[in-house]
Amino acid sequence: MPGAPAMFARLCMLCLLVQNAATATNETSCASSSLPLHIGVVNTQVRAASYAVRGRLLDRASEIEQQLKVGAELPFSRIVKCNIGNPQALGQKPLSFVRRTLSLMMNPELLEAPLLPSYPVDVVERAKEYIGAVPSVGAYSDSQGVALIREHVAQFIAERDGHPADAKDIFLTDGASAGVKALMQLMIRGPHDAVLAPIPQYPLYSAVTTLLNGTLSGYFLDEASSWGVVEPELRRALQHARDGGAAARALVVINPGNPTGQSLPKAVVQMILRFAAAEGLVLMADEVYQENVYGEAPPFFSFKAALVGLRQAGENGDAEAAALAARAQLISFHSTSKGFIGECGLRGGYFELQNIPADVRAQITKLASISLCSNVIGQFATGLMVRPPRSGEPSYEEYVSERHAILHSLAKRAQATAAALSALPGISCNEPEGAMYLFPQLHLPTRAIEAAEKAGVAADEFYCLRLLEATGLVVVPGSGFGQADGTWHFRTTFLPPEDQLEDVMRRLAAFQSEFMAKYS
Amino acid sequence: MPGAPAMFARLCMLCLLVQNAATATNETSCASSSLPLHIGVVNTQVRAASYAVRGRLLDRASEIEQQLKVGAELPFSRIVKCNIGNPQALGQKPLSFVRRTLSLMMNPELLEAPLLPSYPVDVVERAKEYIGAVPSVGAYSDSQGVALIREHVAQFIAERDGHPADAKDIFLTDGASAGVKALMQLMIRGPHDAVLAPIPQYPLYSAVTTLLNGTLSGYFLDEASSWGVVEPELRRALQHARDGGAAARALVVINPGNPTGQSLPKAVVQMILRFAAAEGLVLMADEVYQENVYGEAPPFFSFKAALVGLRQAGENGDAEAAALAARAQLISFHSTSKGFIGECGLRGGYFELQNIPADVRAQITKLASISLCSNVIGQFATGLMVRPPRSGEPSYEEYVSERHAILHSLAKRAQATAAALSALPGISCNEPEGAMYLFPQLHLPTRAIEAAEKAGVAADEFYCLRLLEATGLVVVPGSGFGQADGTWHFRTTFLPPEDQLEDVMRRLAAFQSEFMAKYS
Repeated sequence: MPGAPAMFARLCMLCLLVQNAATATNETSCASSSLPLHIGVVNTQVRAASYAVRGRLLDRASEIEQQLKVGAELPFSRIVKCNIGNPQALGQKPLSFVRRTLSLMMNPELLEAPLLPSYPVDVVERAKEYIGAVPSVGAYSDSQGVALIREHVAQFIAERDGHPADAKDIFLTDGASAGVKALMQLMIRGPHDAVLAPIPQYPLYSAVTTLLNGTLSGYFLDEASSWGVVEPELRRALQHARDGGAAARALVVINPGNPTGQSLPKAVVQMILRFAAAEGLVLMADEVYQENVYGEAPPFFSFKAALVGLRQAGENGDAEAAALAARAQLISFHSTSKGFIGECGLRGGYFELQNIPADVRAQITKLASISLCSNVIGQFATGLMVRPPRSGEPSYEEYVSERHAILHSLAKRAQATAAALSALPGISCNEPEGAMYLFPQLHLPTRAIEAAEKAGVAADEFYCLRLLEATGLVVVPGSGFGQADGTWHFRTTFLPPEDQLEDVMRRLAAFQSEFMAKYS
Repeated sequence: MPGAPAMFARLCMLCLLVQNAATATNETSCASSSLPLHIGVVNTQVRAASYAVRGRLLDRASEIEQQLKVGAELPFSRIVKCNIGNPQALGQKPLSFVRRTLSLMMNPELLEAPLLPSYPVDVVERAKEYIGAVPSVGAYSDSQGVALIREHVAQFIAERDGHPADAKDIFLTDGASAGVKALMQLMIRGPHDAVLAPIPQYPLYSAVTTLLNGTLSGYFLDEASSWGVVEPELRRALQHARDGGAAARALVVINPGNPTGQSLPKAVVQMILRFAAAEGLVLMADEVYQENVYGEAPPFFSFKAALVGLRQAGENGDAEAAALAARAQLISFHSTSKGFIGECGLRGGYFELQNIPADVRAQITKLASISLCSNVIGQFATGLMVRPPRSGEPSYEEYVSERHAILHSLAKRAQATAAALSALPGISCNEPEGAMYLFPQLHLPTRAIEAAEKAGVAADEFYCLRLLEATGLVVVPGSGFGQADGTWHFRTTFLPPEDQLEDVMRRLAAFQSEFMAKYS
């Protein structure tokens, strides 16, 4: 290879040029750029994508965890991960009905005496029904998902919304994220295609838009009105995309909100649906927290129910409603990871299509088929989520009691965390309405902001890193989700168990006083 | 919306224009193009991607299956799906050790008396070890995968190749496909980036290259020498990419081969590794069939072992080997779906990185984190695959006997299927060496080729559709994998159970005689 040294030199230059722009670690060395695959040739969109929920804070937390393991003396004895909605990692027990059924499916020889555990009979019946629906949980299923489970999902939606749903509109996925990624891949072709998404926002949407080289136009949620969505702001974001030369293809709504935890009132859901239909935007409704609404908050109202209402108004003679309903395209996402089932690790989920033409649907199926199928255990976990024990069935009482305990405790922890945060100097926090998060605002002293600037990090990241190092608490800086200019926030789950939560809040309070004193 | 009708008209035109180019179904109608998301605006790369293994043949098979369900009188009573390597769908039993352990993990309350099933003690110990490694299988794991399982994978590789491996190089994935997709997304930035991949080829690689708008340059496997890989052909494909203005980034090798079933000799593996290193190509080694080598075929020899050998030669003073080893970048893929574990539906898998710089690795971790983590049950299934019961442990005898039964039967069926195919007029078939497939060549009569042309389908697709409709057998046309011009093939698994296989071959033989008679 006589030309090799020259080529290496060229790559090396490129590598150096690109390093400033890339979100690379500090481990890049010129030596590595002599390799064919080095950071300088990694897909720019991959480099540009960021996903704060598992970003720098978590890396630092892992380092500290290692230090604790080898006996380092720190002001705390454990890391508490409030950075991600991962209930079972923080002690939430799985639902007995779900895990018993899945254990039988995992090893059907348990269904035969003498191995059969003394499970309630409805567990055994459900396991047999599911086992009969597939050759094996170890076989690939249809790419769209097991037909029986899709039917059960459709029945769940029908009962929830009071209107029939169709199994052919349902696709089972590895969590909701896989569905979001596939649908966005279908719609986003380049910078001229825009997605409207909330700010602050769960960063999946920004990350995937970046990966697809699309344009993200953020609409701001109104912190002053419970992180509300208002039409003029949607319109501003739409116009902003158009002014930049992009056609908006989709509107993302997260309800209940992540990271902001609001539950949208019915009228707002209806407004958003009409807006999307009128403007020709596919509405992507992230409704994975639909079971997580607390206290006096507006009850969950699905976008599908809003669409059904619009159709019915149309059928009752409202011509504008009929025209909008005919044009409204909706994709609703749900997941086994949240709610009270909390089975993040099983990676179950689904999406429902409304008004998506058959040829587009065929493209979605093809995309799914390239991954063969979503994991089959996750598909059945989705089935168990949407078809829990019914009144009168042997597992019902226990199921209701487990559900109540989880939801009641979540509501209590939400309330307690919000109250404790609001009481701290320099922090304000909206009432918790839903999801698993609070997104309090930090009123940082000017000197703290200057110190952050000096350190070359965003002010809220500066705060969160100090918090981590002083207390072991992992929360996510607001800048990872987007926020109004000049405001600073962090996202925290309220998932630590009640007995730990008090300690967590005590540590946070002590830190906050010291931090404010130091920088005021 | 005063401008709307004009816009609709424009979209409609676009839709019509694009329909010819797109691989759309026939269901597109102009009506649907008045919707914002219609086939005309779907990402061109998504439309252009094809994945034959689950394509038109399977759609037709599903239609026929429905007809059979409602009592249609057809020349056969069931559809036999030989289109995909899905062992448990065709009756292969899961390994007892795997499923018993996973059943305990799924419901840890089974570990307590009185529920504890009478499982062997090593099953209980393994389940406890795994349960202790994570907060819950229902919690998100690290994005890279559970540390303990990555360590066990590294030990498996070390034992296989006789050289230490490192858990930090291992990423756990939802099957091998998810890893392939992520790595290709990292490397392929556009048409100027090329991937060299075998023809015929498992169509994941072509589909993902198309999705990423990259360039695929195929190197032909030599049917006359057991679908061998030869350096001049690799060089031709590389030059072809360069002549087209693309830089080749990666070289895909599937060993044992899919759809071609060959097992590459050690010397060929070494040649390929040296070629890739010398030419600056990242070697993507798809080794998911590494346990599936039959009879007198060359035993499996991993690319990792070849790389270790190159390094050792370098350490022993071979300067060229040292230079190549320093530049060789290797990504090896494995999966729980194949081998004798055959757990396709659990979606477990891993890849191992060699010589990939830390900053690139960080980008891979970030990509993984956007999907949060691979399904945790699949991760543990991977653990059980790489760390089976050992000699002296209670489950060992049963494990060995199950493994032997599966592999012995696969070898027997491979042999029987190849022999039966070779005996048919108009079909020739290489000796089966590995994987789960045969890729026989069809010597089609000219009149059959003309009839296919008239019907507007590839000649082998024409054949496979007729075969399906006459016998209920689902195989995949060679054109879905690529093949030398003017040759026709189909891919069939040899997975149907032995008692069905005879019937399958009888049906195929009868069809073949009729088909040849009709068109000769």
